[in-house]
Amino acid sequence: MSVTINENYLLLQDSYLFVEIARRVEKFQEENPEKEIIRMGIGDVTKPLVPAVVNAFKEAVDEMSKSKSFMGYGPEQGYSFLAEAIIKNDFEPLGIKLGLDEVFISDGAKCDSGNIQEIFSFDNVVAVTDPVYPVYVDTNVMAGRTEGLNEDGTYKGLVYLPATEENNFIPELPKSDVDLLYLCFPNNPTGTTLTHDELAKFVSYAKKNNVIILFDAAYEAFIREDNVPHSIYEIEGAKEVAIEFRSFSKTAGFTGTRCAYTIVPKELKAFDSKGGKQDVNPLWNRRQTTKFNGVSYPVQRAAEAIYSDEGKKQIKENIDYYMKNAKIIRENLSNIGLNVYGGINSPYIWVKTPNNMKSWDFFDLLLNEANVVGTPGAGFGLTGEGYLRLTAFNTTENTKEAMKRIANLSFV
Amino acid sequence: MSVTINENYLLLQDSYLFVEIARRVEKFQEENPEKEIIRMGIGDVTKPLVPAVVNAFKEAVDEMSKSKSFMGYGPEQGYSFLAEAIIKNDFEPLGIKLGLDEVFISDGAKCDSGNIQEIFSFDNVVAVTDPVYPVYVDTNVMAGRTEGLNEDGTYKGLVYLPATEENNFIPELPKSDVDLLYLCFPNNPTGTTLTHDELAKFVSYAKKNNVIILFDAAYEAFIREDNVPHSIYEIEGAKEVAIEFRSFSKTAGFTGTRCAYTIVPKELKAFDSKGGKQDVNPLWNRRQTTKFNGVSYPVQRAAEAIYSDEGKKQIKENIDYYMKNAKIIRENLSNIGLNVYGGINSPYIWVKTPNNMKSWDFFDLLLNEANVVGTPGAGFGLTGEGYLRLTAFNTTENTKEAMKRIANLSFV
Repeated sequence: MSVTINENYLLLQDSYLFVEIARRVEKFQEENPEKEIIRMGIGDVTKPLVPAVVNAFKEAVDEMSKSKSFMGYGPEQGYSFLAEAIIKNDFEPLGIKLGLDEVFISDGAKCDSGNIQEIFSFDNVVAVTDPVYPVYVDTNVMAGRTEGLNEDGTYKGLVYLPATEENNFIPELPKSDVDLLYLCFPNNPTGTTLTHDELAKFVSYAKKNNVIILFDAAYEAFIREDNVPHSIYEIEGAKEVAIEFRSFSKTAGFTGTRCAYTIVPKELKAFDSKGGKQDVNPLWNRRQTTKFNGVSYPVQRAAEAIYSDEGKKQIKENIDYYMKNAKIIRENLSNIGLNVYGGINSPYIWVKTPNNMKSWDFFDLLLNEANVVGTPGAGFGLTGEGYLRLTAFNTTENTKEAMKRIANLSFV
Repeated sequence: MSVTINENYLLLQDSYLFVEIARRVEKFQEENPEKEIIRMGIGDVTKPLVPAVVNAFKEAVDEMSKSKSFMGYGPEQGYSFLAEAIIKNDFEPLGIKLGLDEVFISDGAKCDSGNIQEIFSFDNVVAVTDPVYPVYVDTNVMAGRTEGLNEDGTYKGLVYLPATEENNFIPELPKSDVDLLYLCFPNNPTGTTLTHDELAKFVSYAKKNNVIILFDAAYEAFIREDNVPHSIYEIEGAKEVAIEFRSFSKTAGFTGTRCAYTIVPKELKAFDSKGGKQDVNPLWNRRQTTKFNGVSYPVQRAAEAIYSDEGKKQIKENIDYYMKNAKIIRENLSNIGLNVYGGINSPYIWVKTPNNMKSWDFFDLLLNEANVVGTPGAGFGLTGEGYLRLTAFNTTENTKEAMKRIANLSFV
């Protein structure tokens, strides 16, 4: 015998998207060193940590410097001081009751939404929306839930639910049998949302068909409209069919600080092969206690400070700032005749390319003629072709300048 | 169809060890509120972060508070400033050359040693030493590499390599075919080590039999003897057959701060099902970039400070302190006629129970009569029965007091 690799990895497509963007930007900059490029591609925040968070972070580091207050191994699921703040601030105002053991604090929603599939059978059929955050797809490919690639670059064995202009970016319910369904709303990359009633249709479908919904709510802090649910648990009965992922990355600028959490309700059940019902919460608990060792204590204290009165106010100012940028992008691009989506409850704006241009052609046009960097929609899947994603995370000054430059182009 | 669970989780045994210890300690304390219990069970450090680390940690938090120096998403593999410090300080002095892309910085050796099996075939046969750190076993059970339990509590499909008094805690080479072999030296729980020649036998075996060694060196900072390798890569050719896990947890008191790293050499190959050789490094890189989002930036700066002149000196003082405790434990228990192992190159002391007592009986005796808490060896596997683990992480004062109390017992 010989040690062999997990051959499912060989089915993965190269994650060339941001590498290719960086390559083209670098080449352009080299050839045009005098041009000032404005980056509106990658979904990373730019505003620093707010003072309330910084103070709590440093105080916790100070605690670590003294024998009396030093913190060693903490609970793998996170400290209850943070879980309590989460429940009280993120869920109770929505009328959602959660127990401390339903909250799992982690170092990222990417990790959690990537690892969650481990606790389900390798035979489960997975549905994703298209365009899609690549982590949902790639982690299931690695686990062996797909076969090879189709000619169009989609995976055999995966069920894709297109979200396009035609269906107003509201994916239809799966037409074939599925077991796990990933939803991300406000959506990455399209920036669009589901109303309460639209999300309720998915919950009802999941109940009827014994499907579990993996609901990524990483962008909920950007929701501005009343009829858009912040949590899937606002839908009655959703606790029986849904896991929810939340993140402090975009909410509080934690992309480099790393903290997130996942809700696995006690009511959630899946089946065993004999048709018996099994609790899902203890499975995730066992996964996390076995393969994870908790989030850095000072980081958890920093996250807790987001929920202080001061923290809330400071965080809101940053989100308002980004959302002002989103509005500037939406309005300016609409004014020059482009079809734009998202940006109302989300920091992402999904721009339909003019004249049916390909995503990468429009990317090149903006880079070369306006020196503005977006993300080609084709990088998010088949249905992303013909779109470009812009983000609201740059400065207002740069955002305005970018809009001015794009308005001067002659493609419309 | 219905969503189904990963049924391998149902094969897991309850991880009752530390829960059961806590239960017995709590019960004793309730019934004897006046007794002062000395805890020498859990392998957690007690000394606070050293000043060099605290300063760097806080400076990095300050950077996060300003627009100009704010850090968002970092490389999933970690920042090169830390990887460079690791290579220069942990490997170059041993004559080991490594590239930056062979170092993967993470939030814990538990996570890495738990996740590493994902990149290998689910059909691979796994060998572990016995007693063993439970994470190696449980993560392979979850992945489906074992069948049910044998009557003695071992897993069918796993190969166990006993480490006992009889073989001087040097496990024999596997007698049946295996593909992956977990080794941890200095060992948790026994505290024993392998010499250069003894480890070389494993490397040579791995080469001859196309086996990959997963080498956990989390305790290397405690090595005091010259002929004990700090890294498996001190053995010639080991880069072709071994992955190494390192941690700042015990080295620098990072159990609550969370930082570690894993070395996956470019020379390391595994096979595909057609017998072709495949590089392992890109597989781990793909795993980490897809399912992990890097370690908190301030934590990485804190870890970097371990390698400053000041940091090195301060860290060494802490480790010396713990090793003085280890010596006190070894000498005192030996003096009263107990057989003790480990504690020379490790913070763990593995005590043979007197008069063939069972692990849990000896645990109860120490708790009830000396008010000292250890960890029953049986909790680490079949071969751990008849032993108890003590750790050197308490204060010297408490350690001395514990030894005095044990010496007054009449079991010898």
